Amino acid sequence: MGKRIGARTVRLGHPPAVLSFAAVGGHMEGKGPLAEYFDELSEDHFWGQKTWEQGESTMQRHALNKALEKATLHEEDIDLIFAGDLLNQCIGSSFSLRGSNIPFYGVYGACSTMGEALSLAAMMVDGDFARRAAALTSSHFCTAERQYRMPVPYGSQRTPTAQWTATAAGCCILGDEGDGPYVTHLTTGRIVDKGIDDPNNMGAAMAPAAYDTLSAVFRDTQTAPRDFDLIATGDLGRLGHEIVTELFASDGVDMTKNYVDCGLLLFDLAGQDMHCGGSGCGCSASVLNGYLLRGMREGKWRRILFAPTGALLSPTSSFQGESIPGICHAVILSNDREE
Amino acid sequence: MGKRIGARTVRLGHPPAVLSFAAVGGHMEGKGPLAEYFDELSEDHFWGQKTWEQGESTMQRHALNKALEKATLHEEDIDLIFAGDLLNQCIGSSFSLRGSNIPFYGVYGACSTMGEALSLAAMMVDGDFARRAAALTSSHFCTAERQYRMPVPYGSQRTPTAQWTATAAGCCILGDEGDGPYVTHLTTGRIVDKGIDDPNNMGAAMAPAAYDTLSAVFRDTQTAPRDFDLIATGDLGRLGHEIVTELFASDGVDMTKNYVDCGLLLFDLAGQDMHCGGSGCGCSASVLNGYLLRGMREGKWRRILFAPTGALLSPTSSFQGESIPGICHAVILSNDREE
Repeated sequence: MGKRIGARTVRLGHPPAVLSFAAVGGHMEGKGPLAEYFDELSEDHFWGQKTWEQGESTMQRHALNKALEKATLHEEDIDLIFAGDLLNQCIGSSFSLRGSNIPFYGVYGACSTMGEALSLAAMMVDGDFARRAAALTSSHFCTAERQYRMPVPYGSQRTPTAQWTATAAGCCILGDEGDGPYVTHLTTGRIVDKGIDDPNNMGAAMAPAAYDTLSAVFRDTQTAPRDFDLIATGDLGRLGHEIVTELFASDGVDMTKNYVDCGLLLFDLAGQDMHCGGSGCGCSASVLNGYLLRGMREGKWRRILFAPTGALLSPTSSFQGESIPGICHAVILSNDREE
Repeated sequence: MGKRIGARTVRLGHPPAVLSFAAVGGHMEGKGPLAEYFDELSEDHFWGQKTWEQGESTMQRHALNKALEKATLHEEDIDLIFAGDLLNQCIGSSFSLRGSNIPFYGVYGACSTMGEALSLAAMMVDGDFARRAAALTSSHFCTAERQYRMPVPYGSQRTPTAQWTATAAGCCILGDEGDGPYVTHLTTGRIVDKGIDDPNNMGAAMAPAAYDTLSAVFRDTQTAPRDFDLIATGDLGRLGHEIVTELFASDGVDMTKNYVDCGLLLFDLAGQDMHCGGSGCGCSASVLNGYLLRGMREGKWRRILFAPTGALLSPTSSFQGESIPGICHAVILSNDREE
């Protein structure tokens, strides 16, 4: 059955190499513990534009430009780009790429979008459909608040289980040849909905999807948590991270040694008043394309399981009383191509 | 360069076969000239649900079920599904697939989404990443009006250049082996924005993207319009169809013989008061997965160039005075695998 192993996992025949990566962030990200891993930090949440939405597109575009620049690549060297964001009709991405000529596929996986985009980019390169393919995602605190909750100037109070949408973007460029790290495996998510219907408690809504996909990774690749130097879920935050740890504990699987969550890494939760942690397409994207990939290049970790999660709700679905479907797409990155 | 030919086109190494296809539609679609090509038509625009959004998800789910049923396939036979719709955060798709276990990638290309989903599904099968992959999209007149313009009960007047969002869904299942038709080539769109900023004139906004992608197809595959039995763009409607025809005429390329638009095929424009024609992810999806593919199976056409177009705007971007970026993804379908 070709490159498929198990029910949901692909083992890439010739693992694509990470040619370049870049992370761009805003004010709060610059005050957080990962500040030094960003390629660019801006104090201006409009990014020189007139609206927050235009600002998000500009920030996303900067992430792409930085990633190209760091690898001395140009737009025309990229055969395909997969991009997405949280905004209605994904305008963060379509407006960021409006001035570019790169063949473009829009993707939507809420906060799991970097996992989806990276998976698809990896298959495009491995399948010879692209020499180089890019994955690009963003989120913006002010655009997300306006769209999902209340405009920021209203000063709404946040609930203790709420997360903070990161103002950040990340870009990863994959190619056929390079020094790595390499994308060796990927596991596609399926929709998991356990009936949580509180849109201010996304961590709990997404945790079952993370558990489902991570279980599939371990089963399909015949690995256990100890086979990875680091396991990083997307934006489950404090509560979701605890739930995933407990779900695995009840299976007798120990996740306490090397399991982190991007939503817990990006901010200093107590010092920055972040409640349950960071979230948004830009959260896991900027953590991956800054802290995690740089750490791999520097030899801090050899093999990482990156598994961002998304909550596939909309304000309309919540108003209509629907529960929150979650999804989690996983990618294994390794410094060893023959993993 | 592997399977890439020219700048934006992939020639599939082992063209995936269309194993099954299905189209589902609503009341107006059932009154239109393509009624007999639908697998299911419903007079109830709620599809037995409480809200239009739930109705759209149910309709989309029916399209998947019909396509599975027609090929005597089951959910577990599908390794990957690419699905999308027009709703904020693509809830039409995530709620339609909530009860399924099929590994899922959400895609967004506005009304071009069936082109994007079909392209990605084809590459997944050709690249050995999936034995079978499905492409599934939908749109619903009432959910789209509420979201993009005004709730239907307000009874707003439509402008003469407006199109009518189809209440329809289409599903196409591709596999490694089968009698065809086959997906032989695909050309990925790039974002084209010529400055049109009237959201009630999407045909004019998207026409330049269709011209751009069709030109790339002809260039990359060294073909001309006469090499296809039929060229079908997505939902340009009457005005967009005219603009594309004129743009090619000014290049000396004759599009008058075999060029149609799904938005012009789905409805009887005059008789059904459809102004410029149909639109929505479900328009080109249902025309492809009913009229076009059945026509190919019946030998009416041997080789089709299917090129749905999308307008990548949102109400927010229009309120902010932005112009409308367009995109067009093209797929060549042929009864001859060795095309």
